[in-house]
Amino acid sequence: MDARAFIRRKRDGKRHDPGDIRAFIAAHLGGAVPDYQVSAWLMAAFIEGLDDAETTELTRALIESGRTFDWTPLGRPSADKHSTGGVGDKISLVLAPVVAACGVLVPMVSGRGLGHTGGTLDKFESIPGFRTRLEPDAMRDQLDRLGVIMAGQSADLAPGDGSLYALRDVTSTVESQPLIVASIVSKKIAEGAGSLVYDVKCGSGAFMKTPAEARSLATRLVEVTRGSGPRAAALITDMNQPLGSAVGNALEVQESIDVLQGGGPDDVRELTLELAAIMLQLATGADSGAARRQAEAVIESGKAWERFVALVRAQGGSVAAVEKPGELPRAPVVAPVKATHTGFVTAMDTFALGECVVHMGGGRVEKTQPIDARVGLMMRARLGDPVRAGDVLAEAHLARSDEVLMSRLQAAITIGDSPPALPPLVLERID
Amino acid sequence: MDARAFIRRKRDGKRHDPGDIRAFIAAHLGGAVPDYQVSAWLMAAFIEGLDDAETTELTRALIESGRTFDWTPLGRPSADKHSTGGVGDKISLVLAPVVAACGVLVPMVSGRGLGHTGGTLDKFESIPGFRTRLEPDAMRDQLDRLGVIMAGQSADLAPGDGSLYALRDVTSTVESQPLIVASIVSKKIAEGAGSLVYDVKCGSGAFMKTPAEARSLATRLVEVTRGSGPRAAALITDMNQPLGSAVGNALEVQESIDVLQGGGPDDVRELTLELAAIMLQLATGADSGAARRQAEAVIESGKAWERFVALVRAQGGSVAAVEKPGELPRAPVVAPVKATHTGFVTAMDTFALGECVVHMGGGRVEKTQPIDARVGLMMRARLGDPVRAGDVLAEAHLARSDEVLMSRLQAAITIGDSPPALPPLVLERID
Repeated sequence: MDARAFIRRKRDGKRHDPGDIRAFIAAHLGGAVPDYQVSAWLMAAFIEGLDDAETTELTRALIESGRTFDWTPLGRPSADKHSTGGVGDKISLVLAPVVAACGVLVPMVSGRGLGHTGGTLDKFESIPGFRTRLEPDAMRDQLDRLGVIMAGQSADLAPGDGSLYALRDVTSTVESQPLIVASIVSKKIAEGAGSLVYDVKCGSGAFMKTPAEARSLATRLVEVTRGSGPRAAALITDMNQPLGSAVGNALEVQESIDVLQGGGPDDVRELTLELAAIMLQLATGADSGAARRQAEAVIESGKAWERFVALVRAQGGSVAAVEKPGELPRAPVVAPVKATHTGFVTAMDTFALGECVVHMGGGRVEKTQPIDARVGLMMRARLGDPVRAGDVLAEAHLARSDEVLMSRLQAAITIGDSPPALPPLVLERID
Repeated sequence: MDARAFIRRKRDGKRHDPGDIRAFIAAHLGGAVPDYQVSAWLMAAFIEGLDDAETTELTRALIESGRTFDWTPLGRPSADKHSTGGVGDKISLVLAPVVAACGVLVPMVSGRGLGHTGGTLDKFESIPGFRTRLEPDAMRDQLDRLGVIMAGQSADLAPGDGSLYALRDVTSTVESQPLIVASIVSKKIAEGAGSLVYDVKCGSGAFMKTPAEARSLATRLVEVTRGSGPRAAALITDMNQPLGSAVGNALEVQESIDVLQGGGPDDVRELTLELAAIMLQLATGADSGAARRQAEAVIESGKAWERFVALVRAQGGSVAAVEKPGELPRAPVVAPVKATHTGFVTAMDTFALGECVVHMGGGRVEKTQPIDARVGLMMRARLGDPVRAGDVLAEAHLARSDEVLMSRLQAAITIGDSPPALPPLVLERID
């Protein structure tokens, strides 16, 4: 492995030869190529880009750096979903039991929240007792028995991605689409799902601010996933306001329960059904209408809810906490965010809303920080709603009163004179 | 120092704020910014570039990483020359005593040969006993007494450049004009000369292959030097054939002696006088014609030659070896390179000629390799010369016979049917 020649090639904006990226990453993880050479390459790749074939090869190299799961011996199709991160995005909590209840295995490996977005693991862990560290044998048994697991990423799953991410973090090479794609896809493929659906968020609360950026990312995620084996599709969905009403860990668990029990906000239910339909379609070949009806049916019949309760029980969580409203952790202070004048809700700085929840203690600024599961927001107004001065726009659930935070929340919701154009919940499907 | 924000700025193609490059380099040399962050920045700077102000600041940071000399207490103007490297370039050996004999201090700090070009230090060290490691006090005394020193770069002169170069070497970020400029200028300024002249080589034996590249480098060298204090100018000179006849360490010393004694090849004499005139002009304000006549006069009168002998004596070299022809080390085998057919010398692959001398043992592939001072080439034909089949084009001075090498030498000299257009020795002066 001539690391200098390899770096020079990307520096000069050329394509790498097949096999070279795998050799470079393998040499790095084996200790033969030091960090300073990898970071020079990362910067060259950041600026000059990697095409789909190169990204697929990088993905392969990261997958090969650790353990991979193969669920085909269980004899049933499997599928998983990945979201690029938004505010109030509790879809996985509802989606996983819905799809499992439809007979498709959901071997879900999730991350924790970092930055302004929440993490699925943190949400599940607001259920007292819920464990997300599962041993491989336990994962296999539970997946076979219940059709669903909800695990944290173990250290041996795509460890190369961890090493690379640590370097990217300190060398300002994080926000590169091909590097992001390889990081996401390698972890998802290592967990062994046969079909993958990507929910690419777009808008003021997402990493992708424009539909063009989101479309580009979605297309690459799908292409690179397919190039690596699994079936894949993506939805580009709106993130110009929080998804549903609840933002914050325990609040989102409660809202997910509502949806699983047939209620809850329309947008959460709708996006869950759309994503479930695609997962079932990819995994089983069902047609899209039939797949959606199947997903609706398992909510209607209570089977999805039963599957959720079984999942909570299997992973040590308190069934009482999810079965009885009000048993989940609750914040001591609830304060209203009020409209200062009359008009229409025309915009939300959704990123700022997410940041406020982090500031309340509901998320992390540093990786090892503990989380306060109780805090968060309940949105009482949505984009386009007419409001009058004094109307409650949102309720803040707080550990303690915080006037500065309350004014930041108020500033994040814009009231204008005329109703805004509302984007659809699902902007586009990428196949 | 927020290293990530600093790297991000250059990654995004923006200018650094004043002070930031100094802070980043200082933090690196102080151990606070690790290699992997510097190499990511080097790659971003390589691809996105640094403007003159940024390059000047990087130069300043490298200068400040170590010792700097100040010769103004000696009460006389000082000047030095730097060549970007060519084949047969022994100008410094002649130029330094000429300029010193004209009353301008020449505190010359030189490097060793690496790659296809020779190094001034290696050439001087082919004089038996010649020492190039001088202590600062000895440098000062000798400069005061003789007006000239010929020293190797000590470890404390711009050590930051050494650290940065080591990283650039392994991360394929060497061939960046601003990084090259900062590296050259920082070392030259640290050695304390009040005026600096750059001889930017251009052609088949130079790093810069085209006049446009050479002009761009020359302009930046002059601008960045001026931005850092000293007066500066540059010549762009032809390197499409070796300078003079001799290529190789002892052979070049002999040719330099010839020029100092009033003989030698016209091009070596001419370029020496041109560069001397500019050094004197910058250092003393003399007009260009008077400066050139002064340089011619010290050769004519023997004062330049006396100064060379005094320099050799002062630095421990054998005066006998330079005073008596034939006392310098000589190779045991001399083999002719002959013209295969009749015509004109239309081109020389001067880079290949330099590489052949390295291969003979006259240069280095690795930094610590010993050098065979005896070997080299004596060119017997120049570009444009008419030759007949069997004429001697060059003599190879070898440690042992080497048929493969002889055919490489022959292949490096092209004989064509009609005389080529000949470039002038000095293509351009940049002020």
